[in-house]
Amino acid sequence: MIDIIIIGSGPGGYVAAIRAAQLGRSVTIVERAELGGVCLNWGCIPTKALLKSAHVLSDIHRSSEFGIEIGGDVTVDFTKVIERSRGVSASMSKGVQFLLQKNKVEVVAGTAKIIAQGRVEVTSADGATSILEANNIILATGSRARELPNIPIDNSNVITYRKALTMDKLPASMVVVGSGAIGVELASFYHEMGTKVTIVEYLPNLIPLEDVEVSKYLERGFRKAKLPFLTKASVTKVDVADGLCKVYIDTAKGEQVIEAEKVLCAVGVVANIENIGIEELGITTERGKIVVDTFYKTNIDGVYAIGDIIPTAALAHVASAEAICCVEHICGVNPAAVDYSIVPSCIYTQPEVASVGLKEQEAIEAGFDVRVGKFPYTASGKATAMGNKDGFIKLVFDRANDELLGAHFIGTNVTEMIMEAGISMKLGATAKDIINTIHPHPTLSEAVMEAAAQAHGEVIHL
Amino acid sequence: MIDIIIIGSGPGGYVAAIRAAQLGRSVTIVERAELGGVCLNWGCIPTKALLKSAHVLSDIHRSSEFGIEIGGDVTVDFTKVIERSRGVSASMSKGVQFLLQKNKVEVVAGTAKIIAQGRVEVTSADGATSILEANNIILATGSRARELPNIPIDNSNVITYRKALTMDKLPASMVVVGSGAIGVELASFYHEMGTKVTIVEYLPNLIPLEDVEVSKYLERGFRKAKLPFLTKASVTKVDVADGLCKVYIDTAKGEQVIEAEKVLCAVGVVANIENIGIEELGITTERGKIVVDTFYKTNIDGVYAIGDIIPTAALAHVASAEAICCVEHICGVNPAAVDYSIVPSCIYTQPEVASVGLKEQEAIEAGFDVRVGKFPYTASGKATAMGNKDGFIKLVFDRANDELLGAHFIGTNVTEMIMEAGISMKLGATAKDIINTIHPHPTLSEAVMEAAAQAHGEVIHL
Repeated sequence: MIDIIIIGSGPGGYVAAIRAAQLGRSVTIVERAELGGVCLNWGCIPTKALLKSAHVLSDIHRSSEFGIEIGGDVTVDFTKVIERSRGVSASMSKGVQFLLQKNKVEVVAGTAKIIAQGRVEVTSADGATSILEANNIILATGSRARELPNIPIDNSNVITYRKALTMDKLPASMVVVGSGAIGVELASFYHEMGTKVTIVEYLPNLIPLEDVEVSKYLERGFRKAKLPFLTKASVTKVDVADGLCKVYIDTAKGEQVIEAEKVLCAVGVVANIENIGIEELGITTERGKIVVDTFYKTNIDGVYAIGDIIPTAALAHVASAEAICCVEHICGVNPAAVDYSIVPSCIYTQPEVASVGLKEQEAIEAGFDVRVGKFPYTASGKATAMGNKDGFIKLVFDRANDELLGAHFIGTNVTEMIMEAGISMKLGATAKDIINTIHPHPTLSEAVMEAAAQAHGEVIHL
Repeated sequence: MIDIIIIGSGPGGYVAAIRAAQLGRSVTIVERAELGGVCLNWGCIPTKALLKSAHVLSDIHRSSEFGIEIGGDVTVDFTKVIERSRGVSASMSKGVQFLLQKNKVEVVAGTAKIIAQGRVEVTSADGATSILEANNIILATGSRARELPNIPIDNSNVITYRKALTMDKLPASMVVVGSGAIGVELASFYHEMGTKVTIVEYLPNLIPLEDVEVSKYLERGFRKAKLPFLTKASVTKVDVADGLCKVYIDTAKGEQVIEAEKVLCAVGVVANIENIGIEELGITTERGKIVVDTFYKTNIDGVYAIGDIIPTAALAHVASAEAICCVEHICGVNPAAVDYSIVPSCIYTQPEVASVGLKEQEAIEAGFDVRVGKFPYTASGKATAMGNKDGFIKLVFDRANDELLGAHFIGTNVTEMIMEAGISMKLGATAKDIINTIHPHPTLSEAVMEAAAQAHGEVIHL
């Protein structure tokens, strides 16, 4: 009998498999598509590869400013851009395969369904079925793009992120519906490549999950970059004819119609909980997600669920943290519960966005007497030397004990800077701790120290 | 009577002035050259501006890999590269002027000398002298390039960093003597621009102050980039004739002679303690540095010294930390002493280098039972997506209590990642704390978490 069967090999599933193998358990992982799941193959990783091409192009467009002169035309070989991104995904997927082999995890290709406690039926591509048995089953089946009734996906003109990552030619124009991370990252990418992009967001601000100051700053950046967007706007209808989409948009100023070659629907994700045996086993769900306890057990003994199919944030790093916690619990390691108050979030636009913890408004609503510190990149020596002066660092502290409650960054490279705030929150750091820790000069990270100092009226460079 | 006179306006002096003004003191700062000192005008800042041009050029050379095709020739307008760098320095220097004005700090142009306790004589450019009086004097006169007797500087062929930052044309060839931060950064820059560079280092490894694994990895990187270097080598003589330098180098394999247009001497700095009144007042010095107590008081009451002229590390961020501590002490704020065990260091080569705390060997010699964790960029999804897979994260922990003792990073962007380690050390973080803090995916910062996990045999992606 196998110790653990894991269904799905994304950043939840494969991390669970490796951790379980480290802890001496026999593990089988069942995957119906590419190893690594959406994250490696259709999400986090291929988008970052595309955005790297966009960054290179953007630096090239600015090269004269830095004293580098380009004699001829700069052209985008879009096929190559896409191919590189697919190659990066393929190599990461192979990396997962290697790691699973190295850890002696059995990989079964096929579609899995729980048919009873401890029993999983796997249907392979040729329709053959087999039965696997295990003491524990971890569901990690992930999510897919959400569809809206008035924007039916045809995967040709009206598409989701999957198609947007594998286009065979650069579209001349695109309407991006939704401005979460996926929406704005792909909008940024296509805009930089030369597509005429328009973003449509239903809520009052772009990247609506972020601190409103950050959202407004990103909006300013998009305006500067001439990347148009509509907020408080919703798509009521898309008519496709002759390979062109007519997008009807309801706005505060009345109806607007935009014509575009492609409509990218990026309005979030839905959990993959169909046809995996949920109903048959009587596993409890709520609003399309599986209900679990602190250590990811469903209401059925021996059946666990992690990642995008449970109500926590649908982020790769959350799935991985849940995977480790779940497996350690199964293996009796007695792990600490995942701390959902410290989950960083990153958006790889230009400028980048990163945050962790409470937004200012959230902290106020939670009853904290907040003390906010801010520092702009315009006052940073490193940002000036880099020629990237757009951005700011915002820290939210609890006035009562000076502890960091939340961090909201926008600007070059902030996705790599947010963990100073993350680990600070983990360790209960105060503003004074941050101020009194020497930050290297010249770095953008000095802006974190200065933001903390600003909260105490001790900022030097403002 | 003025409360505080500060001599020198570098990152020690101007930060001291602003902090003192914040605390309500009347402050006069005396500067004989550009506001902002060496750091802003001749060091940290202009080099980062030059290196940005080098990074853009390097991305352009690789652009085809990212799907961006450049039709014509790529040329470096070296004058423009230098001009941009000078412009960045000038704007930062103006920024300091603005901050000093805003804080109502009196700025006096001239060369200052303490003539008695509380009395400073200032000689202006036209030779006129005036006397300033204050309760406290802070010496912050900084440092200049060290000269070696067998490599006399002529500022034309044999130069120091100052000249290297303002060359009017790109030299065809250059020997860089010394491989500390200044040496390798300028070597990197000129190499990328197209100069045939050779580095000569007296000690067994490049960047000899760093962890030896990091040094060796940088050496590997320079070899890959075809940037030649000699270690355990010393320049015995430089003959200059017809605008060409013949550099005689003593190596383990015998004498080597290299011809180069320029010789850049980058063998460290010496403190500017001449002609500032040290001897007249009887201020104690030791090996060319001023001796101070925990709060930077010299042996003379009311006279303080901070920055490169005292025995602590000659780094801008150390000077600024000392400035704040010194001023707060003078003003009775009762500051904590500067913690010299947590001073990050950054080197902006490609790949970048950053470190904080004890090197592995130092920790062992200090008697710690160390537990080392390492994670390579080759296994990082973000590094793969960026196409920058050179580098690794190394963490040194105390096995007894699991606390972080030191961090040694090499790779893209590590200068912006080192503060996660810095703040972790400040707060006494353990490897387990780092492992149990969710790091965002996909970022390079995940490699920090993985290195901590590797130390505990829990690494996922290796």
